[in-house]
Amino acid sequence: MAIGVKALGFSFVAHFLGIAGAVMVLVWSIGFRGGLAWEASNKNLIFNIHPVLMLIGLIIIGGQAIMSYKSLPLNKPEKKLIHLILHAIALILGIIGIYTAFKYHNESNIANLYSLHSWLGLGVIILYGIQWIYGFVVFFYPGGTEPIRSESLPWHVLLGIFVYILAVGTATLGYLEKLTFLENSGLAKYGPEAFLVNFTAIVTILYGTFVILTILSQGPSEDDYSYSAI
Amino acid sequence: MAIGVKALGFSFVAHFLGIAGAVMVLVWSIGFRGGLAWEASNKNLIFNIHPVLMLIGLIIIGGQAIMSYKSLPLNKPEKKLIHLILHAIALILGIIGIYTAFKYHNESNIANLYSLHSWLGLGVIILYGIQWIYGFVVFFYPGGTEPIRSESLPWHVLLGIFVYILAVGTATLGYLEKLTFLENSGLAKYGPEAFLVNFTAIVTILYGTFVILTILSQGPSEDDYSYSAI
Ligand code: HEM
Ligand code: HEM
Repeated sequence: MAIGVKALGFSFVAHFLGIAGAVMVLVWSIGFRGGLAWEASNKNLIFNIHPVLMLIGLIIIGGQAIMSYKSLPLNKPEKKLIHLILHAIALILGIIGIYTAFKYHNESNIANLYSLHSWLGLGVIILYGIQWIYGFVVFFYPGGTEPIRSESLPWHVLLGIFVYILAVGTATLGYLEKLTFLENSGLAKYGPEAFLVNFTAIVTILYGTFVILTILSQGPSEDDYSYSAI
Repeated sequence: MAIGVKALGFSFVAHFLGIAGAVMVLVWSIGFRGGLAWEASNKNLIFNIHPVLMLIGLIIIGGQAIMSYKSLPLNKPEKKLIHLILHAIALILGIIGIYTAFKYHNESNIANLYSLHSWLGLGVIILYGIQWIYGFVVFFYPGGTEPIRSESLPWHVLLGIFVYILAVGTATLGYLEKLTFLENSGLAKYGPEAFLVNFTAIVTILYGTFVILTILSQGPSEDDYSYSAI
């Protein structure tokens, strides 16, 4: 399934899309939705932290973590450290982001965990956590034996790609759900905010696509082409 | 990225999930939503055709088409014919299914193409059509030269997987959107219908996952492990 194209071009496009997506979600939450707050009487400001942290944390930084093996001109041990630290940051921001969604629901007396988005979201963060811990133990510290490493690696890559695609899908469900709520309360279906939210979702999907294209392509040195379990 | 596991087991699970999903969407549309109709004064019955055809046609039959190379104990030319015919059926049912969504909107005076779901849905069906025509011309009739075939093949596989994942994602957006509309009109958030719809979405995602796992695994004979452009 690897494609004989250099990863660098794809990873540049991904970076551009990541910056665009981060700006768009900030313009939406701060410019259109009134800003971000941890404590506020207007509970919507608490909710607003949720999409910001999920997109910038889990999706964008998580994508950087995934791409780091393919896009950085460094040695394996350094790239491994960057990979696991970036994923830890993504995971922590993701957990805080989900916490704010619950905080908003609880302080506004809205039920928790009723939607497909919330169910999948919980699945994503649990799988992400399991994947991180398993990777840490087997590939970093204390580290598994050679056969365990090389047996685990293709499944680590496969589960990683699966969880990442599921995260991108969950985020798009979140945009659609929030926008549907707003449109039901009178927001114009073809107004500027609706377009901004829908295009933020599309940029999110494109970012995810270019992250995956990057890792299916050729890294800077020949050995990076196929994964090695060292 | 190919995994050293036999495809057959994955494809059995996919078939089981496909049957479950088909039954669930029929129970929903007929048992809970009043049934299917092409012409009706209750326009909701026209809409109901949409999820049925999109799931059973585009997603389930489309998934069968994708798996056919890996799961059938036949020769390449026969499998190729099955692949392209099943994809044609999936595409046609998908186009009719989208037509019914437009028909419902027009006859109920609801705006067209305002949602993320509808935008992505249009993208899916257009890409699916382009992918089918390109595949037909290059791999079937009249058929490209040998270098064109082997250059095209990895991109055909990659674009095919991309469009399929996008289709599964679009379907989950559809379930969430429809259920959100219903819940806004009073449907219970934790009632039996809400659970049915959410679990149909989860079965759809799992079906897509097992379709992809099937094609990343080993086919019945050794040559089927990697794709060949013949
Ligand atoms: C992969 C990223 C995301 C994950 C893992 C995730 C996860 C979750 C979870 C677990 C909840 C449930 C909170 C509760 O029940 O109290 C939730 C709620 C919510 N999220 Fe997200 N979220 C993500 C991205 C987004 C984005 C980008 C948006 C865009 C606005 C969004 C919009 C919402 C909304 C509107 C709710 C409240 C309604 C509901 O519970 O479905 N989410 N999210
Ligand atoms: C991959 C499969 C699917 C595709 C390609 C697709 C495509 C589309 C398109 C293009 C429209 C726009 C019609 C218009 O604007 O007049 C639409 C509408 C709609 N679809 Fe789907 N659909 C799919 C699956 C589903 C499923 C499984 C459901 C579940 C109920 C669903 C629910 C809806 C709803 C509620 C609408 C009307 C609201 C809207 O325009 O977003 N769709 N679909």
